[in-house]
Amino acid sequence: MITTETQTDPYTAVQHFYARQMQALDARDLQGYADTFTEDATFAHTPGREPARNRDGIVADLHEFHRKFDTDPLQRRHWFNQIVLDAQPDGSLAATVYALVVDTRPEQRPQITASCVVHDVLVRDGDTFLTRSRTIEYDRG
Amino acid sequence: MITTETQTDPYTAVQHFYARQMQALDARDLQGYADTFTEDATFAHTPGREPARNRDGIVADLHEFHRKFDTDPLQRRHWFNQIVLDAQPDGSLAATVYALVVDTRPEQRPQITASCVVHDVLVRDGDTFLTRSRTIEYDRG
Amino acid sequence: MITTETQTDPYTAVQHFYARQMQALDARDLQGYADTFTEDATFAHTPGREPARNRDGIVADLHEFHRKFDTDPLQRRHWFNQIVLDAQPDGSLAATVYALVVDTRPEQRPQITASCVVHDVLVRDGDTFLTRSRTIEYDRG
Repeated sequence: MITTETQTDPYTAVQHFYARQMQALDARDLQGYADTFTEDATFAHTPGREPARNRDGIVADLHEFHRKFDTDPLQRRHWFNQIVLDAQPDGSLAATVYALVVDTRPEQRPQITASCVVHDVLVRDGDTFLTRSRTIEYDRG
Repeated sequence: MITTETQTDPYTAVQHFYARQMQALDARDLQGYADTFTEDATFAHTPGREPARNRDGIVADLHEFHRKFDTDPLQRRHWFNQIVLDAQPDGSLAATVYALVVDTRPEQRPQITASCVVHDVLVRDGDTFLTRSRTIEYDRG
Repeated sequence: MITTETQTDPYTAVQHFYARQMQALDARDLQGYADTFTEDATFAHTPGREPARNRDGIVADLHEFHRKFDTDPLQRRHWFNQIVLDAQPDGSLAATVYALVVDTRPEQRPQITASCVVHDVLVRDGDTFLTRSRTIEYDRG
């Protein structure tokens, strides 16, 4: 891992954090993904669905959410970019981030399934960050 | 906002600048978007259309350009990435940037409407940048 | 070019490296693209096809690969993002990167032709990097 010594810029550290977080999610490493949240995090990933709370809750919720893919051979990729960071008085960072969900199914061209704006609160954790809360807003036109 | 002290790398500052600039545009904050250009900027966003000149001209031009969306419920997202920066003798940065325009309409899958290369000249403005000129080249195959 | 003095963060330098490398490839500057690899590099870009070896081999291989586009008016764009870097004991960086291939043909909407994960080994070369090996894994669902 690239260490604090070389990664002094929080913007860069956040980009790297998101890259690792999304690669964990897309590899269905749900525990690894949940570990990128704080222990007391909230995660509202689907409108109209109660937010998941704390790491165990996030893992349980994601297992349930991913069940629909069990019979759907799908490689999903999350692209997080166009990151805007605003420092909060408590030292956390409010992040507003564009996200694309790109799905590939056998013998099909990749498709953009969703365009979203992610609203995160990020807190420092050593040389990286943790997500303390996440709310996803889906573009609907 | 993340300040100069923490954002010493101009590449990072440019990425952050583009993220804020695009989020302003996609939120239809046309004044906020125009304010990311220098007062004397030129902006050639559509081939065959006269470039907009200075901030007021850019705002007026964008209002006219966006009028076609008044009856089209559309959430547009601009993705700026793959940024190449070359320092110019006058201290400005020539930026060559890939852009995707991703549109979402109600009940439809997001679609890539355009793939472009953006040619910018960026000038320092305190801890961020301003666009002094922008020319957009559309991929046509 | 932005120099070492200002680009101290290897993560940023890698992003800039990829931006230049992809812009060379998409401009069909195959020699310029090959020059972003080490002299002894290996490049496995297509499953079931023998990897290209060394710069001359990469240029020759790409010329052959691109021949199919001679009669296909196509503007291809490679997007490399969601970069995860892991320092290796020998000082190189293992990079795991998401890639999208976006193709535009005349009178057509841009399309995502492929979603990939790129596995690179990068080595320092002055203020930038070179690719020592590259293996591309295509999403198939």
